[in-house]
Amino acid sequence: MTPSPATASERRATANATALERLCAADPILLDVRPVIEVAPDMTRETILTSGAPLAWDEYTGGQRGAIIGGAVFEGLARDPTEAETKLRRGAIRLRPCHDHGCVGSLAGIYTASMPVLVVENRPFGNRGFCNLFEGVSRYRLNYGVYNEEVRRNLLLVQEVIAPVLAEAVRAAGGIPLRPIMRRALHMGDELHSRNTAATLLFTRELFPSLLELSRDRPEPVRRLLDYLGSSDYFFLRLSMAASKVTADAAHGIEGSSVVTAMTFNCRDFAIRVSGLGQSWFQAPLPKVAARLFQGFTEDDIQFMGGESIINETVGLGGFAQAAAFALQDYQGGSAEGMVAMTRAMYEITLGEHPELKIPYLGFRGIPVAIDIHKVVATGVTPVMDIGVAGRNGGQIGAGVLRAPLACFQAAVEAYAARYAS
Amino acid sequence: MTPSPATASERRATANATALERLCAADPILLDVRPVIEVAPDMTRETILTSGAPLAWDEYTGGQRGAIIGGAVFEGLARDPTEAETKLRRGAIRLRPCHDHGCVGSLAGIYTASMPVLVVENRPFGNRGFCNLFEGVSRYRLNYGVYNEEVRRNLLLVQEVIAPVLAEAVRAAGGIPLRPIMRRALHMGDELHSRNTAATLLFTRELFPSLLELSRDRPEPVRRLLDYLGSSDYFFLRLSMAASKVTADAAHGIEGSSVVTAMTFNCRDFAIRVSGLGQSWFQAPLPKVAARLFQGFTEDDIQFMGGESIINETVGLGGFAQAAAFALQDYQGGSAEGMVAMTRAMYEITLGEHPELKIPYLGFRGIPVAIDIHKVVATGVTPVMDIGVAGRNGGQIGAGVLRAPLACFQAAVEAYAARYAS
Repeated sequence: MTPSPATASERRATANATALERLCAADPILLDVRPVIEVAPDMTRETILTSGAPLAWDEYTGGQRGAIIGGAVFEGLARDPTEAETKLRRGAIRLRPCHDHGCVGSLAGIYTASMPVLVVENRPFGNRGFCNLFEGVSRYRLNYGVYNEEVRRNLLLVQEVIAPVLAEAVRAAGGIPLRPIMRRALHMGDELHSRNTAATLLFTRELFPSLLELSRDRPEPVRRLLDYLGSSDYFFLRLSMAASKVTADAAHGIEGSSVVTAMTFNCRDFAIRVSGLGQSWFQAPLPKVAARLFQGFTEDDIQFMGGESIINETVGLGGFAQAAAFALQDYQGGSAEGMVAMTRAMYEITLGEHPELKIPYLGFRGIPVAIDIHKVVATGVTPVMDIGVAGRNGGQIGAGVLRAPLACFQAAVEAYAARYAS
Repeated sequence: MTPSPATASERRATANATALERLCAADPILLDVRPVIEVAPDMTRETILTSGAPLAWDEYTGGQRGAIIGGAVFEGLARDPTEAETKLRRGAIRLRPCHDHGCVGSLAGIYTASMPVLVVENRPFGNRGFCNLFEGVSRYRLNYGVYNEEVRRNLLLVQEVIAPVLAEAVRAAGGIPLRPIMRRALHMGDELHSRNTAATLLFTRELFPSLLELSRDRPEPVRRLLDYLGSSDYFFLRLSMAASKVTADAAHGIEGSSVVTAMTFNCRDFAIRVSGLGQSWFQAPLPKVAARLFQGFTEDDIQFMGGESIINETVGLGGFAQAAAFALQDYQGGSAEGMVAMTRAMYEITLGEHPELKIPYLGFRGIPVAIDIHKVVATGVTPVMDIGVAGRNGGQIGAGVLRAPLACFQAAVEAYAARYAS
């Protein structure tokens, strides 16, 4: 007697169990810091990466458009913004989505060839992902849609001073495992998206022994690296993004899986990718953000200019782990009760709980992992994300909570039905 | 018309407002690390300090007695335990309570003349307090009632290697303000008694620039200090204890105040001091502790051997701030709900909330400050304390929550009534 063939729902359950298992088994290690041209697949000197599903050049507006142009000028691909515009329209400068090159972009998410990136490997699976570095504490940053002399100087500081000594320290340490840092940071009030205070400190401590060695010959670059690491609590965000990217990528491409493996947005649309649905982006217009704005700004000042740090929510961090980070109230508003409710809601749309990344307040329950498009559509509960908020004149003007639009999950469910209807 | 004289209750309210104000205004700075003989008032070569209200020599039992004897041998005040016993009985070795010499003792709380202490000054008031250093990660420690060759070696390591380089780094930094570290640590999951993970990291980061400098000439001691600081999350506890001691001391001695300025215990009795009631200790037998014990131990193994780290609860940290430290569940048991309830209960017996030390979960409500003996007796709610639990064969065997006995507050209320009647 041959066994009866698995039903569609059994096949989906098996595929999703594999996706969940891979999301939980990820073990990201920071290996190096290198120019993106040297490490990202299919990157060229004339390529610029930016956040979100791709748009035609003229559909990029506001800060994201400005950041792309700024990137072109910074990299020397154009003498000035006018020439950059021309080359971008003609395709002489090639504009590509970060996600397809192993990268994830913060806000506008600009990568040009010479920019240094954190090189993270997912040890059990061998896949690599990349994220560029925090630009420093200035309100004006390329990822927030601004390019001027100050931004240029900060990008050069990161490229010429910070990245080389950081790279050396990381290599001297033999690589830095990120999962233990993330595990501890969740016990210390970080949700690892809008709050990275503990993780940044823990990471810095891991570097100390190598930095002590390096400082004997070159005290000045080490001092500047420490200033940079100490000047902000956000350094680790780029590491958690790269870690989340390699985590999600390892769960992508599983035939029959309805688990979300990327969430992203550009200046216009929110988009998701699904493990068993190839490289398609399922898109919907961006919703409003519930923001707490810095003094002097109003809702009218808010401008979306892209964002892929929500790769962290894709694997259960950030908004999904708000109940680990009550101090965030101060930064993005809300209440402790509201934060707990949001995390609890995310368990309704996910398939499992992380065995090691846990939330103390919930009695050390694991973070909610593996968003299932069917659960989202069935419940109407959409992923919640902690994001930085950009202003229409560039720069950060606040922080807040974004809810993914239901329509992209509905579109994905339809595509799933079409593809997997035997 | 002359104003009518203030009533007793008005005088008490005024005195207590002053006590509350002083507790909130404290600004403790770590200035140095020095042998206790050089800094503590009225310390002599032949003096040993120990935790709790003083007992006759023969009333010291178990681990506390063993630790005192061990301290005498360590310091060279006696060749062996027998000689130490003889000299302690005769008074040739002078045994004194830590609190009366500006010190606070962890568990048995042994101070001998040569031991290095953290020197903390309360800047606005100018008073100083001291605490000795964490002995290291060994299960066997003098403060947990053990003296053997391993304990001796660890004490010498702290004295000869750790303390000198730490002192140098602290002085090079021009002192380290502790309040900003404590403020941030409360946002990062510490309650600063049984959990000091974030504070230890933050403190280490403050030292790092000085350590980079020092390591150029002397890499080895710096490396050993970093190993010591990185090997445990508990280093900062001794700093928070010294900070709490100078905080409480500045609020002591206010005529008419019924605010508690010290809580302590020896191997037998719990005791409190009250701001307006001089140097008297109001005592009651030790209650049971609700403990989570390390594997292999039972309640029968628990032994009290003194403890003054509860100076932290005296000023609103530790058990009073449990709702800041949900990760403690793992270490000392309980539930998040229970921890929140305990912190909320402490607001019932205190007179105010700290303006700067705040609890994120409670919407950044300040920690409960200024325990009023009258409120304790009126409500029957007694202070809750997070403590390490010692075993009858020495060493730490767990951690737990201790409730102060009501009887010492009742005794203090009676004494207050007697003194301030009229």
